Amino acid sequence: MSPPDYNALGFKDIVCSLDGGVAVILINRPKQRNSINKNIIKELIQAFNLCDRDDRVRAVILTAEPSAPAYCSGADISGGWDLLWEEEAEKEGDQAHRDSGGTLSVVIYRCRKITIAAVNGHAAGAGVTAFQLPFDFRFVWAGAKLTFPFVRRGISAEATSTYLLPRLLGHSRASSLLLTGATVSPDSPYIRDLYHQIVATREEVFPIAKAFAQELSANTSQPSVAYTKALMQHPGDSIEENHLIDSRAIRILGKSQDAAEGVNSFKERRQPKFVDTLTKNSNPWFPWWRSMDIVHTKSKL
Amino acid sequence: MSPPDYNALGFKDIVCSLDGGVAVILINRPKQRNSINKNIIKELIQAFNLCDRDDRVRAVILTAEPSAPAYCSGADISGGWDLLWEEEAEKEGDQAHRDSGGTLSVVIYRCRKITIAAVNGHAAGAGVTAFQLPFDFRFVWAGAKLTFPFVRRGISAEATSTYLLPRLLGHSRASSLLLTGATVSPDSPYIRDLYHQIVATREEVFPIAKAFAQELSANTSQPSVAYTKALMQHPGDSIEENHLIDSRAIRILGKSQDAAEGVNSFKERRQPKFVDTLTKNSNPWFPWWRSMDIVHTKSKL
Amino acid sequence: MSPPDYNALGFKDIVCSLDGGVAVILINRPKQRNSINKNIIKELIQAFNLCDRDDRVRAVILTAEPSAPAYCSGADISGGWDLLWEEEAEKEGDQAHRDSGGTLSVVIYRCRKITIAAVNGHAAGAGVTAFQLPFDFRFVWAGAKLTFPFVRRGISAEATSTYLLPRLLGHSRASSLLLTGATVSPDSPYIRDLYHQIVATREEVFPIAKAFAQELSANTSQPSVAYTKALMQHPGDSIEENHLIDSRAIRILGKSQDAAEGVNSFKERRQPKFVDTLTKNSNPWFPWWRSMDIVHTKSKL
Repeated sequence: MSPPDYNALGFKDIVCSLDGGVAVILINRPKQRNSINKNIIKELIQAFNLCDRDDRVRAVILTAEPSAPAYCSGADISGGWDLLWEEEAEKEGDQAHRDSGGTLSVVIYRCRKITIAAVNGHAAGAGVTAFQLPFDFRFVWAGAKLTFPFVRRGISAEATSTYLLPRLLGHSRASSLLLTGATVSPDSPYIRDLYHQIVATREEVFPIAKAFAQELSANTSQPSVAYTKALMQHPGDSIEENHLIDSRAIRILGKSQDAAEGVNSFKERRQPKFVDTLTKNSNPWFPWWRSMDIVHTKSKL
Repeated sequence: MSPPDYNALGFKDIVCSLDGGVAVILINRPKQRNSINKNIIKELIQAFNLCDRDDRVRAVILTAEPSAPAYCSGADISGGWDLLWEEEAEKEGDQAHRDSGGTLSVVIYRCRKITIAAVNGHAAGAGVTAFQLPFDFRFVWAGAKLTFPFVRRGISAEATSTYLLPRLLGHSRASSLLLTGATVSPDSPYIRDLYHQIVATREEVFPIAKAFAQELSANTSQPSVAYTKALMQHPGDSIEENHLIDSRAIRILGKSQDAAEGVNSFKERRQPKFVDTLTKNSNPWFPWWRSMDIVHTKSKL
Repeated sequence: MSPPDYNALGFKDIVCSLDGGVAVILINRPKQRNSINKNIIKELIQAFNLCDRDDRVRAVILTAEPSAPAYCSGADISGGWDLLWEEEAEKEGDQAHRDSGGTLSVVIYRCRKITIAAVNGHAAGAGVTAFQLPFDFRFVWAGAKLTFPFVRRGISAEATSTYLLPRLLGHSRASSLLLTGATVSPDSPYIRDLYHQIVATREEVFPIAKAFAQELSANTSQPSVAYTKALMQHPGDSIEENHLIDSRAIRILGKSQDAAEGVNSFKERRQPKFVDTLTKNSNPWFPWWRSMDIVHTKSKL
């Protein structure tokens, strides 16, 4: 199978491109304030799955045109909550429903590459949950208004935000955000630790995130990133179990070509040239953790 | 059963009132520096259980008279540690003892309404653990002295503080507090993230907390708050399990009257008028998690 | 068995001493920039195990000569990654490998005394993971360069850092450190919450850490510290389980001699004189948690 052309994936609500090892996914619904419909969720899932599998991709950035009114204004609820429901799942009963924002969150979280949200505009609802929390890094415009409106809309916090936000920031800050339905600025003490960098202007957010992605893409090992992400996500239930797991990871990676290059480049005081990939270096031990099946019973997906 | 009159509950060491959706519980032992005796624990457990069940209550504030010498000075150990022991449990052996501060912590933590500690004075021991950590929000007087004295008193950290504090603030800050027996100010980097707001004067702490509670009480959905709290407390063991759980919550709440009002008020750019309650909207799926039985074997409670 | 003389333990790469209740372990490889070889790991494991068992020891400080070029420059990889592999484990296969940094991390983490890293110089690799993260407290020189280089060396984050760092600081900050391979200063928002205190000069780091250790050593109860540490490390899986565990701890310690002295000294407004020790007050219930066996199958250790 020849590698896909990112400029010709035929998406409607997003635009993809690949520049060196950095994939860029542009949210492309400016006329709808970059709100979320069913189609953009499907396209984003496809795009992140593609980036996960494509060895050429080392980092993925999600961003919006900085001229759009918002980075992502959340679910388009102009037609009420009907956009939440899928006909197929509705027939099967309560247990078959899968929150679409969460379906996307899980895919982004599982992506084995570096993931970056370049939040160059306001964000609300799934725009602050699914579109930010499952990423490894978040860059944000200092003027962005960030809103977690769920308790003020009669629903509960969604898109796995109740799993991710307390882990990212601690439960004290997560409560201040999720239980108030607050709108906050990035420099609020409730949320500022969520961001790797707060950027003065909307226009600078993407270039700064891109340069960060390019530097990491050029100088980090793809398997090293994937294993380190996985170790943080699945550390084991105790320090002892973590010790067994990270020892196994070191045993596998420590004998890789990238590890040899890591030492050589260090000794020669030069930048490394890493060549290992997730395909070339695949190992039956990875992934070592069990995953719960989240596809609902009769789904054709 | 007619709803109780909060002004006539016959408590001795606390004073309760209900104003709109906001219940206020006043610690009322100023002559004893608001220290903790066996009776106040019993009364607080009754009061928080009542607030949990009473659909009229949307938020609960615990506070003290700002003229009292302390918000809560901790357990009254003037008679030694004897206040810890209950005759009934003592007869049964070590495994029957239940720490009274922890018994209260669990009840406050489980309360499905918004809970707020308005810490308008100094606090020590259980006054910083049971009387603060299990709450959703903490407001504090900037001049308060806050003391975790356990390792300096020959006992261990109690009242579920070793569960709650690391989750609220991370293990680095929790160690700096619990393993030193430190007395700190609210602006200490060790503790400041515990507080939703630090207030300049003792007198302002309660009014600010009350206004915050009233705003949330007026504009948030009772089931939304209860489900979001529960999702943060019981998020599941993985992002996948959380996705299944929050999807189910969204399926249930998304079809509620409050969800419809949430959309309508948003579209009409007005404040919502939520009517759903935990009684009216009870669902056999909630609670979805298993709870450990903590009543000791032969207890008559 | 007579208590050991800390000045005559015959170590080669570390120097130990005992002053009052405070044990000091000096990293003693200045000519090798205090890099890590196999021998120093073995000696540190011996030293921390000794401090754990010796009732005289109430606090342990790990530090370096401030004149050394680094606190710890990480593993000595001048000979490549060969220093990672142990002949015995190599014969047995991938599952037998134990990361040496992690072997040390587990021992330090399990030490029941107060543990302090006095980071009076630059630190990299295992010098920021095994030599800092498993400690209760970290003091650091403001000018220290701190580097987590793993993803830039072709290996994964080691020494149980993927377990410890997210728990200490939250996942947002842990990603900013472990997935970038960053070099940061102690005042970086990514890492500053890791430190109990940031100290202006290299020379002051150890004296300040020592005074802190001496004060805690003089005024805290040895069993209180051990139980509180263990409660934070093994809090149970829910608030209810934590309540059962900390109740049992209170029941045991609340009847101890140190608890009586804790009350008496408080009432008499004087410093306590604690006499209980882990040997004298050993209780079959402690430890209450299960531990995974991490010694590999055929190891003679």
